[in-house]
Amino acid sequence: MKNKINTRKLITVLLTLNSVIITETTAQAPHSHKHDIEFPNIPGFKTLKGDFHQHTVFSDGQVWPTIRVEEALREGLDAISITDHLEYQPHKRDIPHPDRNRGYQIAKKKAKGKDLIVINGAEITKKVMPPGHLNAIFLKDANKLLNDDALSQCRAAKKQDAFVFWNHPSWVRQRKDGVATLTPMHRQLIDEGLLHGIEIASESEYSEEAFQIAIDNNLTLIGSSDIHHLIAWKYHEKEGGHRPITLIFAKEKTSEAMKEALLNQRTAVYFNNTLIGNSEYLVPLVKQSLRVTKTEIVKAHGTKNSFVQAVTFKNESDVDYILENTSKFSLQSHTPIFTIKANSTMKINVKTLELLNTFDLKFTVLNALVAPKKYAEITIKIIR
Amino acid sequence: MKNKINTRKLITVLLTLNSVIITETTAQAPHSHKHDIEFPNIPGFKTLKGDFHQHTVFSDGQVWPTIRVEEALREGLDAISITDHLEYQPHKRDIPHPDRNRGYQIAKKKAKGKDLIVINGAEITKKVMPPGHLNAIFLKDANKLLNDDALSQCRAAKKQDAFVFWNHPSWVRQRKDGVATLTPMHRQLIDEGLLHGIEIASESEYSEEAFQIAIDNNLTLIGSSDIHHLIAWKYHEKEGGHRPITLIFAKEKTSEAMKEALLNQRTAVYFNNTLIGNSEYLVPLVKQSLRVTKTEIVKAHGTKNSFVQAVTFKNESDVDYILENTSKFSLQSHTPIFTIKANSTMKINVKTLELLNTFDLKFTVLNALVAPKKYAEITIKIIR
Amino acid sequence: MKNKINTRKLITVLLTLNSVIITETTAQAPHSHKHDIEFPNIPGFKTLKGDFHQHTVFSDGQVWPTIRVEEALREGLDAISITDHLEYQPHKRDIPHPDRNRGYQIAKKKAKGKDLIVINGAEITKKVMPPGHLNAIFLKDANKLLNDDALSQCRAAKKQDAFVFWNHPSWVRQRKDGVATLTPMHRQLIDEGLLHGIEIASESEYSEEAFQIAIDNNLTLIGSSDIHHLIAWKYHEKEGGHRPITLIFAKEKTSEAMKEALLNQRTAVYFNNTLIGNSEYLVPLVKQSLRVTKTEIVKAHGTKNSFVQAVTFKNESDVDYILENTSKFSLQSHTPIFTIKANSTMKINVKTLELLNTFDLKFTVLNALVAPKKYAEITIKIIR
Amino acid sequence: MKNKINTRKLITVLLTLNSVIITETTAQAPHSHKHDIEFPNIPGFKTLKGDFHQHTVFSDGQVWPTIRVEEALREGLDAISITDHLEYQPHKRDIPHPDRNRGYQIAKKKAKGKDLIVINGAEITKKVMPPGHLNAIFLKDANKLLNDDALSQCRAAKKQDAFVFWNHPSWVRQRKDGVATLTPMHRQLIDEGLLHGIEIASESEYSEEAFQIAIDNNLTLIGSSDIHHLIAWKYHEKEGGHRPITLIFAKEKTSEAMKEALLNQRTAVYFNNTLIGNSEYLVPLVKQSLRVTKTEIVKAHGTKNSFVQAVTFKNESDVDYILENTSKFSLQSHTPIFTIKANSTMKINVKTLELLNTFDLKFTVLNALVAPKKYAEITIKIIR
Repeated sequence: MKNKINTRKLITVLLTLNSVIITETTAQAPHSHKHDIEFPNIPGFKTLKGDFHQHTVFSDGQVWPTIRVEEALREGLDAISITDHLEYQPHKRDIPHPDRNRGYQIAKKKAKGKDLIVINGAEITKKVMPPGHLNAIFLKDANKLLNDDALSQCRAAKKQDAFVFWNHPSWVRQRKDGVATLTPMHRQLIDEGLLHGIEIASESEYSEEAFQIAIDNNLTLIGSSDIHHLIAWKYHEKEGGHRPITLIFAKEKTSEAMKEALLNQRTAVYFNNTLIGNSEYLVPLVKQSLRVTKTEIVKAHGTKNSFVQAVTFKNESDVDYILENTSKFSLQSHTPIFTIKANSTMKINVKTLELLNTFDLKFTVLNALVAPKKYAEITIKIIR
Repeated sequence: MKNKINTRKLITVLLTLNSVIITETTAQAPHSHKHDIEFPNIPGFKTLKGDFHQHTVFSDGQVWPTIRVEEALREGLDAISITDHLEYQPHKRDIPHPDRNRGYQIAKKKAKGKDLIVINGAEITKKVMPPGHLNAIFLKDANKLLNDDALSQCRAAKKQDAFVFWNHPSWVRQRKDGVATLTPMHRQLIDEGLLHGIEIASESEYSEEAFQIAIDNNLTLIGSSDIHHLIAWKYHEKEGGHRPITLIFAKEKTSEAMKEALLNQRTAVYFNNTLIGNSEYLVPLVKQSLRVTKTEIVKAHGTKNSFVQAVTFKNESDVDYILENTSKFSLQSHTPIFTIKANSTMKINVKTLELLNTFDLKFTVLNALVAPKKYAEITIKIIR
Repeated sequence: MKNKINTRKLITVLLTLNSVIITETTAQAPHSHKHDIEFPNIPGFKTLKGDFHQHTVFSDGQVWPTIRVEEALREGLDAISITDHLEYQPHKRDIPHPDRNRGYQIAKKKAKGKDLIVINGAEITKKVMPPGHLNAIFLKDANKLLNDDALSQCRAAKKQDAFVFWNHPSWVRQRKDGVATLTPMHRQLIDEGLLHGIEIASESEYSEEAFQIAIDNNLTLIGSSDIHHLIAWKYHEKEGGHRPITLIFAKEKTSEAMKEALLNQRTAVYFNNTLIGNSEYLVPLVKQSLRVTKTEIVKAHGTKNSFVQAVTFKNESDVDYILENTSKFSLQSHTPIFTIKANSTMKINVKTLELLNTFDLKFTVLNALVAPKKYAEITIKIIR
Repeated sequence: MKNKINTRKLITVLLTLNSVIITETTAQAPHSHKHDIEFPNIPGFKTLKGDFHQHTVFSDGQVWPTIRVEEALREGLDAISITDHLEYQPHKRDIPHPDRNRGYQIAKKKAKGKDLIVINGAEITKKVMPPGHLNAIFLKDANKLLNDDALSQCRAAKKQDAFVFWNHPSWVRQRKDGVATLTPMHRQLIDEGLLHGIEIASESEYSEEAFQIAIDNNLTLIGSSDIHHLIAWKYHEKEGGHRPITLIFAKEKTSEAMKEALLNQRTAVYFNNTLIGNSEYLVPLVKQSLRVTKTEIVKAHGTKNSFVQAVTFKNESDVDYILENTSKFSLQSHTPIFTIKANSTMKINVKTLELLNTFDLKFTVLNALVAPKKYAEITIKIIR
């Protein structure tokens, strides 16, 4: 509350003939201004945070690509892609001949020396569904996708070994009922190996039908902001909101390892305080987030020890976990369903009915979806 | 953030022979310092907020009774009772002959002219269970309960038309396993009409066994702080915590109406962000808290309207409601289980699949218990 | 703390041949997200808040002009100008033929129907001082200033009845010692009526030499952000920071009235929690900000009234005023120098030594500069 | 952000014949709930924080002495004294025969094992001025001061080697004009070595006349809360307020060292965001609080270095320092008078006019009073 920090810009000035070239490099914002999204790694994998659907002035976005880099750095993301519309160029009066790699190039340069992976991307933008909008990322040259035919575009992406995902399949502009539906064309794209993932959360929307399509077709789960103006404004950072992101469980923090993870469906989605993904990754992610830091018997002075044990949990993630106790023991400190707030510590008293040296706590994590309407179940062994 | 308010004390000075009598009356704290607990009324009843289990220096508490009045005013409570231990007087070296009505008298005087009902009470304090500790409130003269025998004490309370409830029946000091159990003695108290209520939430403890005992025996549900030092410290007001309270659904805000409601089981308990009570009162309470302020069709410009409807809810309570969507429609904006934060507004997009002029939204309220492990179900009719 | 608000975008979609034209209109952010800058009007004039020095992608800024409009609306500004560099076009690879009016045109369109005045502007950008950088605002056609010679440019501006001010005259890039110095060329511009104002606060810099130059030459005082990336990041809104702005004392809220005020030196600057300006406007501004809402005699119960009077002030501005008591009375509640926080209420006890029905309080406002190192003196008549 | 921490009470239960003795020991509040007052040590001395004027139920206070200990621990105080009125016992109906050492004894026991020094004290309470109210601390037996005659009481205090100070000498109840005035009786007390200190800040009042009396008579400066109900409520902790305290510059943190410091006038007062004291201690205290952590030349890219140096200050105290730049250099980043917020970092750009390897910054600290209306002057040597 008391930190008023006076920052200074570093001004880079280059001379030209009769005018001054000024490049402003803003000093990295101090920590208090950041709103880091925090998740622990899981056994065997690093948990990387990515947002692979973002716009800039190079299509219908409202910022220069450098802003996207700064936003990502402030939130501690590990990877971004600038994915401007290939076919939709509303700023073309001012930006008449856009090289479709420019967003990437400018962002990449801005991120130089920073711990942020920037990958090249583009949005294939068709006015009708199918196929609607598709994002191709890990592109080598986005311009080669400039083509009226979506199928050809996807094949061009495949030639570049791109990872392609289906954007907002439930968007009411293209699906009046907001229900994602797999069409024969999408079926074909999948069968040809041209479509690898699907946005189950995009901007402010979650689609449980899309989630089911992903499960049924072995598509990678993607969550994206589809941001056009500013992340802070849209997701109300001040109030604790966050953009949708994809969590990628990668062997290391490199572009290649991330692509390998994406191609092998090792992702989860973090949307509106909810985790969505395969239980294979979600269960360890939640368990790593909720560490037991202490166990102790609740003592009643003047008597022998009680049969109630206090277990202290530390939530090391950014999620307010909504838990339902499904252990065989009831709790003394909480009703069966309760919330452990993000980045906080909470003591839970368990009525074990006898003096136990070890016992299991079981919780259903009501905001960790492993399938539509199906929740992650975690078991935590407590040892006194 | 910018409110630094300089308050002044009003000093009341009375003269005595050779010394000064000073009575300090602190000006009511400005609103920003308060942490009001907010709940709406329900049809037919006012929703009163009471804490009927509190201690002062007149037994083992650490404050003069006036502090309990100020705490209640700051939180916007409607009623309190000071219920010092009858048999336990650890401060007797300094307060040797305590009139058991003194806590009440001092608090009552402090509350004069304020919108707070103070009722006389006392805690019958037995070292063994049964009966353990019992609170008798609405007493006329607490001293008449000074007696070694609990049964006699309860009968003396009945003579004064008191309302008696069983305190912390799951307290590990008296129940090693923390499991509330109805004993023959409690059975007798109930049968004789001497015991009317039971704490199902006390201090930091919830007892689902006590909740079941209440249901099985038609006992009034009570939630209390059992505070000994300060509410703000114990319940971490700064972090948004709150003391357990009893919500009383009374015909009007008077002591008599409140007693009538208590004797007729018209209460609910607010504990640790959870409501607990009979669905007859809990369902309207939650529904009054979650008002629909707007419904609109989600539009996609350039096309006809969509089949998705946005419904705006305003949560006018102090509870962060954890909802599970059980409607026949899925949501576009949220996964099935989500939280509507206290005193906030949230828009929920519903996929009605066709253009409906009216439809029902159904939610299970996962932090509104109507029986152990059973949750309030609410249906909200949406009219476009 | 509890406001998590779920906003929705309104999507405007227009069809083109084989692609989709999407225009995103973000719903106006709810009030809690805004960081309004608040100042009262003064007798005879409206107090308008303007920032007339801002950059976009049309020179070396990092945002599309629409973002500048939204930033201004969130802060409650009354007027802005987009003033991209005429001669410095680092984005010209992507924006090759920029019409110098485009920033204005786009911002103007975005502000349509909003309570924000957008005026056309441009920055004359010379690599050497003199003249350094100059802003011309209220332009009709910025392209007509495209010219290598600064003097010619200023004359072209004059032909359009522009208001011209000297930017950051103390910028170390052009003044190694950071000391603003009036050169013969600036002298000439003033004499020819081509230069009307001077930035005494720009970005994170204040120049007391520039302030003196303004006084000596009857130049209008200007404070500007010179923003290139985002206001929220640079000025740490979360911590209560603010961008430098010009306060314009105008007869009404119109572009014409604002220009008339600027041409007649009716401005003040709000920089880093400090007001800077002519005492003719600063004194009434501070006095309107610090309203007396109550006066009362401090009473000592049981005795006659005291000779101490409590005066309650309400600071209705965004400035934390640092006051020095220069009244003939000393204070009982404060040491001579103290702060009245922005938008707060404070009671000040004055030792008047006898029972007065009326008396004067005098303060030097230590963060209201009326000349270099000279502070506003205010007298407030207190009537009981 | 700091979320909801579920704390548990530790219940200490002792058995008696037919009732339960319960002593509640609340677990030390976690750090986020504390509002530590922070000041650095100065060369040669530890800076101890004490509040030597506090009330409990043993006179007209509203809390048991244990609460005073917990309040002090939460604020990180080093020393407290409970100083109940000797002659004023409004609770005597309930506490009929108070041993005047009881407040001390109970507080001392509560503080056992904690890093808090509790010293015995009492308030000599006369209805008229002189002598008004006097606090005697470091008493061995407060009961020996029970006596109608103030002079005799002071002599009894001296026999116990007590430190005696004059309370709120400007209190309007006893000084209608609020002006502290040295009477012959006080003169006599000082001459006899019976009066050693004076409250220049008490509760919400500062007295510059008392400050002058202290200087003229070599009395120790004292600042006290004179708290009767709760510190958090009175001083609005949530808004960043604080109680008045005495800073004691002691050779070590012991009762004896503290007394030695008090008897040798090595104190300062912290009142309402202002430091008041002898410049001998205040100047090093402020200098220790405002550490230079970095100095660097402000660079303008593409040119040689500038003549502007950026100096980063870290304010390691709880005071928002109001500084006036009195260096021979003007600042580029600030107007001459500005605030460095408590516990924050700020960069100040200095226009040194040439490239200096070392130079002096001089500030008048406008909220550090070394005499009435006279302020601490600090000089900070900057070395590049």
